[in-house]
Amino acid sequence: MATLEDLGVSAFINILSAFVFLVLFAVLRIQPVNDRVYFPKLYIAGKRTHDHRSRSSAVTRFVNLNPCTYVAFLSWVPGALRMSEAELVAHAGLDSAVYLRIYTLGLKIFLPITTLALLVLVPVNVYGGTLRGLGKDIAFSDIDKLSISNVSPGSNRFFFHLLMAYVFTFWVCIMLYKEYSNVAFMRLHFLASQKRCADQFTVIVRNIPRVSSHSTSETVDEFFRRNHPDHYLGQQPVYNANRYAKLVKQKERLQNWLDYYELKFERHPGKRPTGRTGCLGFCGSEVDQIEYYRARISEIERRMASERQKVLNDPKAIMPVSFVTFDSRWGAAVCAQTQQSKNPTQWLTDWAPEPRDVYWQNLAIPFFSLSIRRFLISIAVFALVFFYMIPIAFVQSLANLEGLEKVAPFLKPVIETKVVKSFLQGFLPGLALKIFLYILPTVLLIMSKVEGYVSLSSLERRTASKYYYFMLVNVFLGSVIAGTAFEQLYAFLHQPPSQIPKTIGVAIPMKATFFMTFIMVDGWAGIANEILRVKPLVIYHLKNMFIVKTERDRERAMDPGSIELGENLPSLQLYFLLGLVYAVVTPLLLPFIIIFFAFAFLVYRHQIINVYNQEYESAAAFWPQVHSRIIASMLISHVLLFGLMSTKKAAYSTPLLIFLPLLTIWFHKYCKSRFEPAFRKYPLEEAMEKDNMEHASEPNLNLKSFLATAYLHPIFHLFEEAAKEAAAKEEETVEVRIDKAQRQQNRHEEAQARSSSQHQETHFRSTHETYYHHEASHVSRSTQYHEGIHVRSDTDSPSPPHFIYHYDIES
Amino acid sequence: MATLEDLGVSAFINILSAFVFLVLFAVLRIQPVNDRVYFPKLYIAGKRTHDHRSRSSAVTRFVNLNPCTYVAFLSWVPGALRMSEAELVAHAGLDSAVYLRIYTLGLKIFLPITTLALLVLVPVNVYGGTLRGLGKDIAFSDIDKLSISNVSPGSNRFFFHLLMAYVFTFWVCIMLYKEYSNVAFMRLHFLASQKRCADQFTVIVRNIPRVSSHSTSETVDEFFRRNHPDHYLGQQPVYNANRYAKLVKQKERLQNWLDYYELKFERHPGKRPTGRTGCLGFCGSEVDQIEYYRARISEIERRMASERQKVLNDPKAIMPVSFVTFDSRWGAAVCAQTQQSKNPTQWLTDWAPEPRDVYWQNLAIPFFSLSIRRFLISIAVFALVFFYMIPIAFVQSLANLEGLEKVAPFLKPVIETKVVKSFLQGFLPGLALKIFLYILPTVLLIMSKVEGYVSLSSLERRTASKYYYFMLVNVFLGSVIAGTAFEQLYAFLHQPPSQIPKTIGVAIPMKATFFMTFIMVDGWAGIANEILRVKPLVIYHLKNMFIVKTERDRERAMDPGSIELGENLPSLQLYFLLGLVYAVVTPLLLPFIIIFFAFAFLVYRHQIINVYNQEYESAAAFWPQVHSRIIASMLISHVLLFGLMSTKKAAYSTPLLIFLPLLTIWFHKYCKSRFEPAFRKYPLEEAMEKDNMEHASEPNLNLKSFLATAYLHPIFHLFEEAAKEAAAKEEETVEVRIDKAQRQQNRHEEAQARSSSQHQETHFRSTHETYYHHEASHVSRSTQYHEGIHVRSDTDSPSPPHFIYHYDIES
Repeated sequence: MATLEDLGVSAFINILSAFVFLVLFAVLRIQPVNDRVYFPKLYIAGKRTHDHRSRSSAVTRFVNLNPCTYVAFLSWVPGALRMSEAELVAHAGLDSAVYLRIYTLGLKIFLPITTLALLVLVPVNVYGGTLRGLGKDIAFSDIDKLSISNVSPGSNRFFFHLLMAYVFTFWVCIMLYKEYSNVAFMRLHFLASQKRCADQFTVIVRNIPRVSSHSTSETVDEFFRRNHPDHYLGQQPVYNANRYAKLVKQKERLQNWLDYYELKFERHPGKRPTGRTGCLGFCGSEVDQIEYYRARISEIERRMASERQKVLNDPKAIMPVSFVTFDSRWGAAVCAQTQQSKNPTQWLTDWAPEPRDVYWQNLAIPFFSLSIRRFLISIAVFALVFFYMIPIAFVQSLANLEGLEKVAPFLKPVIETKVVKSFLQGFLPGLALKIFLYILPTVLLIMSKVEGYVSLSSLERRTASKYYYFMLVNVFLGSVIAGTAFEQLYAFLHQPPSQIPKTIGVAIPMKATFFMTFIMVDGWAGIANEILRVKPLVIYHLKNMFIVKTERDRERAMDPGSIELGENLPSLQLYFLLGLVYAVVTPLLLPFIIIFFAFAFLVYRHQIINVYNQEYESAAAFWPQVHSRIIASMLISHVLLFGLMSTKKAAYSTPLLIFLPLLTIWFHKYCKSRFEPAFRKYPLEEAMEKDNMEHASEPNLNLKSFLATAYLHPIFHLFEEAAKEAAAKEEETVEVRIDKAQRQQNRHEEAQARSSSQHQETHFRSTHETYYHHEASHVSRSTQYHEGIHVRSDTDSPSPPHFIYHYDIES
Repeated sequence: MATLEDLGVSAFINILSAFVFLVLFAVLRIQPVNDRVYFPKLYIAGKRTHDHRSRSSAVTRFVNLNPCTYVAFLSWVPGALRMSEAELVAHAGLDSAVYLRIYTLGLKIFLPITTLALLVLVPVNVYGGTLRGLGKDIAFSDIDKLSISNVSPGSNRFFFHLLMAYVFTFWVCIMLYKEYSNVAFMRLHFLASQKRCADQFTVIVRNIPRVSSHSTSETVDEFFRRNHPDHYLGQQPVYNANRYAKLVKQKERLQNWLDYYELKFERHPGKRPTGRTGCLGFCGSEVDQIEYYRARISEIERRMASERQKVLNDPKAIMPVSFVTFDSRWGAAVCAQTQQSKNPTQWLTDWAPEPRDVYWQNLAIPFFSLSIRRFLISIAVFALVFFYMIPIAFVQSLANLEGLEKVAPFLKPVIETKVVKSFLQGFLPGLALKIFLYILPTVLLIMSKVEGYVSLSSLERRTASKYYYFMLVNVFLGSVIAGTAFEQLYAFLHQPPSQIPKTIGVAIPMKATFFMTFIMVDGWAGIANEILRVKPLVIYHLKNMFIVKTERDRERAMDPGSIELGENLPSLQLYFLLGLVYAVVTPLLLPFIIIFFAFAFLVYRHQIINVYNQEYESAAAFWPQVHSRIIASMLISHVLLFGLMSTKKAAYSTPLLIFLPLLTIWFHKYCKSRFEPAFRKYPLEEAMEKDNMEHASEPNLNLKSFLATAYLHPIFHLFEEAAKEAAAKEEETVEVRIDKAQRQQNRHEEAQARSSSQHQETHFRSTHETYYHHEASHVSRSTQYHEGIHVRSDTDSPSPPHFIYHYDIES
């Protein structure tokens, strides 16, 4: 058991490290060389450009020499707070704005609860005074004197705790209701004020049955012409192009190398670059690199051409999935919300995700396989959740100092040093846990992909929900029980498994200090680390040194990242759980949570404004999950309080506590029916309103052409490119690669050659009109599809606006 | 503990009583006087008429004197089996046909399971042989030697039980899947082959918001004209006419008495009937009854007229509910399945129930109140389920003979008689339970009404589901624990409540004999009682003797009853639960269940063909509930097996058993997504197909006029009647009551006066074209609304087809 002193040391360490991180951040962020690490969102949004390079000296290009800017190391805070919520929605999307509301919700819930708990429950606990009398045979820490453990069993003081449990539950419910209502309103408002989007007119149809005499496209056409005669507009078949995508990726890599060597040759025209072809350039025969890569590229292009023919001509390459478009939002809303076919497993319709949100690989999974996949994955998640506990428990038993001394007696003198001991006891268990959790989201994301969800947003939500179960069992329950379990393993094995809730209830107050350390490590230092962006910083500079060959590579080395809902939602939900469980039991834990929420709010607001790049817009589709998880946390806190009370011989508590979970469940049901439809369905009233407005303002709108390419499978854009390329080759023998990156590079080089003032104007227009998605280098996102539409209208390319798609699938 | 001998006595008693009931039934059913008790459905369907009266003597009109018909006392069985399923659907509706499939499903599930269990598990249990060695200190009965209790703890023989648990689960799943698929197909086929019905074009809209400047009708009109411009046809507002309905009921009662006295006066023209007006006719002043009732009726009519004006003119009488009709099934399907308004609590649309299925009183409940009502009712159900146990436990403790002797020592000599003792032990507990359960469905139906469901079918389903919880906790768990609890009360109170599953698991095999008796009393004798229809028989003859004054009253005294899903579904589900729980534990219970299913199948098939009158057609909407309850039973059986195994020291069973519930849950989810949409939604493909067919066959159909009166609130038909009546009064001073019953009576009287051959033809046509619903006299159904459409086209009334509504609301 950690004492108050241990806790103090831990707090000191964590506050210190958070402070160090903040100072480091303050220094690093104002260095121009780190600009692309700390302000990538501004680059993407076109609010910051590359011009500092041309106007200043070599030194100031990399280091900020203005001493004034170093003084105010918290100067980012007002900046983070300055932007209003409406601006935030415009700048970073509704998802980000609503994500920040989770933190403010945390503050709104826990600030009054903390005040009340500290004013009422702490005095009650202190004057309960049993433990003081028990002597030293049980090693209770000082914190326990302020917790419910200090109240003697059978005491009437437990009425205060029951009353507070009711008050807290009501308060949380009120806050949740208000917030759900706000978010639902924001969502509807956002959707209503959105400009015309392809996904408003499009429905994704899955499990199209195979009709022997017809092609899939014909079947779809016939079906929708028959069943939606008034509104059906067209359809976009989906091609299975995973092999082609692999080739594209391969070609791109080779192209990069070719660019690099050509650049090298340009700079030193006398020496043609050579190298070996074998493994890692160390063996094999010596060849001219430019020739070599050109040959390999043309080889790949040949294979691409044959693969392309295969995709286009093979009917099996058309998947039983289609994006069906309608001539009005009303028609699409109707089709998405109704059942189409007599067989409910065929012609499954749903809203099409945003084009950039589609996860193409999962589109072809049939219904039955989907059901099997989900079952298998749920078993796998179950196994992961329950057997992952073993290594954590092992590491934690090592982190237990007595255990460590037994395993490694030679460490004893070091460990026994007071400072080291406090450090280890305060820091190790939380840290071990954090490391374990680090690789997990990736695994869970892959699991979600196997489950067959078709949009990135739903994948993230599914990952979040798996991660939540994991956190609940392993971080929360695992920490509560395992820590106790190693002290009383024998007794525990011989208790019936149904006793667990009670055991947890009893263990809860004892683990308060552990969770305080956890909050400090994970919440305080962790968030400070988030703003410092150590990993992207290091990787960016490493890439800059070793890999970046062209300006385009520098752009690719910039890793804005995103909010990572799959990882952050569950952690947030864990904090809510801790807060709600300990609100009645050990109120002293609450201030730690409040500091976390406040600090994290500032940091994430700053990051959302300056760093993260939104990958898709789901219009806050994750809120129902956030809401129901907080409800679940409340229910867990009620059950545990129940377990705790039953060991405290407070017999009257049973009938009083039984209504709390009932009320909570009713509240949840009410909120679900009241607000959830706003997140799952699209009201016809709304659809009709927007349709009518559009008809009135643009009576001659050609919707068909607007929708024609929106859900075109990326392969088609590449096909167009390829066809153009082939034509160009024939015309001019000179190889003209119509490539987004190449163009951009050319543009930058031209721009640099021109006068800076003229350049600035031009470039601003260009980047402003560029809707760009950076390709993430994270393994967790490497299989996603990124699409960017480049509308070129700057002066150095007088060609008409032109769509170029960038495409990246790793199967 | 009951011994094998007790069980034998109980079986003898129950088989005997079942046999007696069957013989009684055989004798009573062939008496013409009981015709209306045993064959009401045939009267209603027009397959049997009243003509036996005119052609035979006074004696043969009441008693069957043909001795041959008495010999074959089971002659009804082939009759019950002869009708094919398709004929059954045409004769009694899909609900009835699918209801019978539950019994065949029971047979399909349990016949193979029983065979396997008796062949494999019984030998394993017999040779397990622990209890034999324990001596007489635990009073295990002989049946326990054949159950799992006989296997010694820690034995490897439990592998057989685990294996069987898997085999049984798989078998049940296969059967459930096949049956769900069959029923879903039958439902779709039924809906597709149905002729044009108003409910196919109608959507019920609830929670219409009040707009201050508009009336509700205008609001509805405007909303649907805007949001469904292509398909909206019209709307039918709903009036709050509960007070008017009360007056109508009152008038009807007075009218009955007036009829009676007028008839009396006609037969004895010399003596005008007189009576006292005061309480029960014993005090008050002596008045001329005919005058008195005429005066009272005209008084009521005056009040009705003013109330009518109030309903018609008061905008508050229009409820925020409307039946909205569309010009095609497609339009209605779209509207019913989509969300209309931005506020998900307004403009709630759903399929309109069949006109005769509508429960008018509940239409006006607002959304929020609905949510509160459901919460309160769920608490009430919870209380009912858990505190109802006390009286049952008390009665059962009395039924415990030792307890009875203590309470009433003077009974000791009687009780100790061997036969009486066996009788009491075998019969009493089951009977006590049955009596307790008798009044319950009514209470639960009222609770469901308070919850605010708008159709009779959903009310019945909700009642069924409440009743199931009740049965589960009180009949199943209550019997298992309470019986044991009175023997070991002290030990039980000091165990943690979480231990309950284990306690139940252990108690399960010990309670096998109790449930065997229960099945015999409730299942065997109970079903035989169902076919005998003692209560309707007695009531019919009592009514005939004392109350029936006119032929119309005789028709009303006929009580065909209905399947009573609210009561029968949960009992059936209880049998499934018992079968599944005991399949592995005490296989000897299974034959009892099989006999129940087989016998009940025959009886209900007979009753459905000859007796029950379908009140509404929900197209087997109850099947998903049946399915999921059987799944729940399987899960319960798994949990209890788990509990039982954990006390048997079969440690290896834990990991092996954990997959059973998982597999079951997956199966349930799969079935839910595969089949449930067929019961909840109406596919657009289907709707469009039927629309097109109709357009092709009847291009000039005036749908508007077809739909105009379909969902007219009954009050309007009464208003029309009233208006006509008033007109008629003015024209001819003679009072012409245009009343359904009166017409029918007239028709019968006229028909009797004519030649029998001509009559028969005429009448057959008349009743065949008459779609009639008998008004139930049950208190449980007295608040329902019954509607019958009479298309009069027989020769004695040459007027054009004409709608007359009968209306009956008791608020």
